Amino acid sequence: MDSVKYVLAEQDIPKFWYNLQADLPEPVPAVLHPGTKQPVGPDDLAPLFPMGLIEQEVSTEREIEIPEPVRDIYRQWRPTPLFRARRLEKMLETPARIYYKYEGVSPVGSHKPNTAVAQAFYNKEAGVKKLTTETGAGQWGSALAMACAFFELELSVYMVRVSYNQKPYRRGLMENYGARVTPSPSNETAAGRAILDEHPDSTGSLGIAISEAVEMAVQDDHTKYALGSVLNHVLLHQTVIGQECRHQMEMAGDEPDILVGCTGGGSNFAGMVFPYLGEGLRGGAKPRVVAVEPAACPMLTKGRYAYDYGDTAHLTPLVKMHTLGSTFVPPGFHAGGLRYHGMGPLVSHATQLGMVEPTSVDQLETFSAGVQFARAEGILPAPEANHAVAAAIIEALRCKAEGTGKSILFNLCGHGHFDIQAYMDYHAGKLTAQEYSEDEIAMALAGLPSVG
Amino acid sequence: MDSVKYVLAEQDIPKFWYNLQADLPEPVPAVLHPGTKQPVGPDDLAPLFPMGLIEQEVSTEREIEIPEPVRDIYRQWRPTPLFRARRLEKMLETPARIYYKYEGVSPVGSHKPNTAVAQAFYNKEAGVKKLTTETGAGQWGSALAMACAFFELELSVYMVRVSYNQKPYRRGLMENYGARVTPSPSNETAAGRAILDEHPDSTGSLGIAISEAVEMAVQDDHTKYALGSVLNHVLLHQTVIGQECRHQMEMAGDEPDILVGCTGGGSNFAGMVFPYLGEGLRGGAKPRVVAVEPAACPMLTKGRYAYDYGDTAHLTPLVKMHTLGSTFVPPGFHAGGLRYHGMGPLVSHATQLGMVEPTSVDQLETFSAGVQFARAEGILPAPEANHAVAAAIIEALRCKAEGTGKSILFNLCGHGHFDIQAYMDYHAGKLTAQEYSEDEIAMALAGLPSVG
Repeated sequence: MDSVKYVLAEQDIPKFWYNLQADLPEPVPAVLHPGTKQPVGPDDLAPLFPMGLIEQEVSTEREIEIPEPVRDIYRQWRPTPLFRARRLEKMLETPARIYYKYEGVSPVGSHKPNTAVAQAFYNKEAGVKKLTTETGAGQWGSALAMACAFFELELSVYMVRVSYNQKPYRRGLMENYGARVTPSPSNETAAGRAILDEHPDSTGSLGIAISEAVEMAVQDDHTKYALGSVLNHVLLHQTVIGQECRHQMEMAGDEPDILVGCTGGGSNFAGMVFPYLGEGLRGGAKPRVVAVEPAACPMLTKGRYAYDYGDTAHLTPLVKMHTLGSTFVPPGFHAGGLRYHGMGPLVSHATQLGMVEPTSVDQLETFSAGVQFARAEGILPAPEANHAVAAAIIEALRCKAEGTGKSILFNLCGHGHFDIQAYMDYHAGKLTAQEYSEDEIAMALAGLPSVG
Repeated sequence: MDSVKYVLAEQDIPKFWYNLQADLPEPVPAVLHPGTKQPVGPDDLAPLFPMGLIEQEVSTEREIEIPEPVRDIYRQWRPTPLFRARRLEKMLETPARIYYKYEGVSPVGSHKPNTAVAQAFYNKEAGVKKLTTETGAGQWGSALAMACAFFELELSVYMVRVSYNQKPYRRGLMENYGARVTPSPSNETAAGRAILDEHPDSTGSLGIAISEAVEMAVQDDHTKYALGSVLNHVLLHQTVIGQECRHQMEMAGDEPDILVGCTGGGSNFAGMVFPYLGEGLRGGAKPRVVAVEPAACPMLTKGRYAYDYGDTAHLTPLVKMHTLGSTFVPPGFHAGGLRYHGMGPLVSHATQLGMVEPTSVDQLETFSAGVQFARAEGILPAPEANHAVAAAIIEALRCKAEGTGKSILFNLCGHGHFDIQAYMDYHAGKLTAQEYSEDEIAMALAGLPSVG
């Protein structure tokens, strides 16, 4: 009676990505042009993305075939293991059965390469020579840097300046793969210079870094832009996670009653739950689906479902999503991957349709959960993943209180080997309960564009 | 034609450890008591280790059953994958077939838990309440900290002071699992105080840290000592690696012509090669076996095969091994796991019998190899593992020069996510070719005890 791992064979790596858009009862609202505020066409997006990805962004095909060169690279770390957390169950004395999918076995320690490799492939295929992107804590940037090394693409990463200075190791990892990393805001772009003129000491934000990366991408034909979450095609690429989970839960002879994932832009969450949501929409089982966000950046629980920009300089198209406003800057906390102002439109749409239960947890609770998990199961979760761990533990303790033996599956989207400082701060009592500011959110929401 | 991973099922985790002592043409020289200089008996070792491990230390049984609770925990990360490095082969334009076993998928990112879990189990079974150990860079300490969390044992780690100060993250990982970490030399022990009296600014060494851990362990009956390499039982526990390799190479339809492992105390090297050496001794195939050590700590290539102490204060038994002398302190370099003065006696014995080819590589060459490997295969190797990568590349390029398509298998014993600073220093041109000092080695060797 100890932890058990469910392992798939190489041939069990999914052969297609699952597209939730095929099964939705009503389509996701259109993306709007930032100038005309009319629905964008493929040509509007062409300066940013290769046509292969634009087609995926709007496709309503249920199954989109994974190109063989992408599957070949997936084989480096996929299929990823699914575990029964027996030691954690014992520690919690819960009758619940707790399962977790572990994406930290990828070479960069997170789920991000699932889409990074696909994006690099489609860009390479389209003759693109160089990509630009932004990164916060660096999980996405390091995944894309690895993918660009595989496909011999140049990469320029705009890294939020506070992370660039405080977290040199993710930067070192990106540079080791051959990427160029620039602290954002920078003097290289008009967007960056505008910020620096007004705030010379700006520590940056994801919204600013996106503006810089987008501005650099549109300047020539051989450079495109890549985003690590939010967009439909990014969430699509992550659905290999949930497809493998379904197969592995079958091996375990069990079915999840509750699915739990943490949400920043929505990619690891969608990757696990979309294949389950689709099954439910087609008449299959409908597990409860819980989306966990930080109390300090509460998009789904406190934001507004409205059209908004993806970046600070308002260079991106407008998408309808749960947003805190593109000027909202959350208080400093240790889950850099969950600090974006907007949610992936497909996750927002599914939430609006009642298919997802949003909830939020405070950072002290997330670290307490992460420490407990590490001592029980060995793996040290990334601070982002700790949100899912915390919510899974809450559900397991509810089962204990109610005396019900439910089955809980959560996505452990990455390891915390780059985040030890955060754990040390937690143990030293330096972390605080992080509250969002009602005023700041109200102010940011007041600035939302008036469309839709 | 891309990298391919060979995955075993959970039931393929080996059921026994393979003991090379069963197949050796002549037995490994006896371990001597540090006082009497006569062969030690089990009772002499009882203050340090539980009887289960002492029996394994001297056993000549070929197969030693892995207890079910240990196998249960192995399932968290075992079987580990074996890869064909097709992208690296292509980059090198070599006709060689390069395979690597990857132990970095364990929760702490290295092979060390293979023995940490076993040692914690046997201690727990014997009623031990607390373990003491030393750690250099922290790979071993973090593995044992995790194992002690699983078995609810207290752990006190003496960490070489220079690493304690410069590498706070491995320390943070150990503390997160619940271990107590003390910089060594410390004021807690007579051995530590003696060093500090003479050198108040001592930055420590593994030999000193071992003295402290041993001194603390022998002070009461409920505390024992644990070592992460060198000893026979430690190397024994690592043989799960090579057994899995044999199975996976069979899946690949290939057989290794050349085996490559890096050597500090010998545990990851022995873990991979001993099952192959045993097969050869029993009349099977005899691949070339290459042991790679740092040019700055050249035990096998420049040391003496002689009886020596395992620690600086000469509290440990005397073992016959390739040694640079227990007072030798190698120059500072970035592979903390390969800085010990002595080699595991079984590895030394096998080398003396001509079964192992020792070689050494310089640290610049190891990092160059590691960067090349990361860009081709994605995984960033630990600096220790870079020694094996470098030697494997040398062999692959020799195949290219000779036009021979040999099969090379090396052990990638851990990932480098805790070692990004070393890579950043390498890229910044701050690392130098590291030379050992002939004079210092001669001086340290002159101090060897006169026995054997």
